[in-house]
Amino acid sequence: MAFNAKIRVTLRKSILDVQGKAVHQALGNLGYNDIDSVRIGKYIEVHINEEDIEKAKKITDDICHKLLSNPVMEDYSYDLETI
Amino acid sequence: MAFNAKIRVTLRKSILDVQGKAVHQALGNLGYNDIDSVRIGKYIEVHINEEDIEKAKKITDDICHKLLSNPVMEDYSYDLETI
Repeated sequence: MAFNAKIRVTLRKSILDVQGKAVHQALGNLGYNDIDSVRIGKYIEVHINEEDIEKAKKITDDICHKLLSNPVMEDYSYDLETI
Repeated sequence: MAFNAKIRVTLRKSILDVQGKAVHQALGNLGYNDIDSVRIGKYIEVHINEEDIEKAKKITDDICHKLLSNPVMEDYSYDLETI
């Protein structure tokens, strides 16, 4: 058994998302005026070869803290799927 | 009423994910040897000011096709949440 961690890393709400603003403006230029805001982050899928879900959670939290997200500016969330 | 579109844009499985490979290697160097693969994509949250869910879906598919993903190399999927 293994797990697929579907991780979302996003800028903290308090931080200006310059990339999101640029895309929001581009969508406005394309005529999509019903869009209030756009925020852009990273989507990371990690296949973890682990039997126990608690250990898989621990590995996922560890790698998010240490490498995949910047705890100063970013938040992360994830779903674990058995495969 | 409005909708929050949570969009995931990922490289097609057939395409080599160079970024994912680099992160996979870095995790191995940090001692995480239980990880089989890492694939990295974009996570985009779009607030859509629309009452009707079918129209919100149409807008989301449109903006994914026209701007947020590259149909030649990327796939997209999304969830619509009422807010």
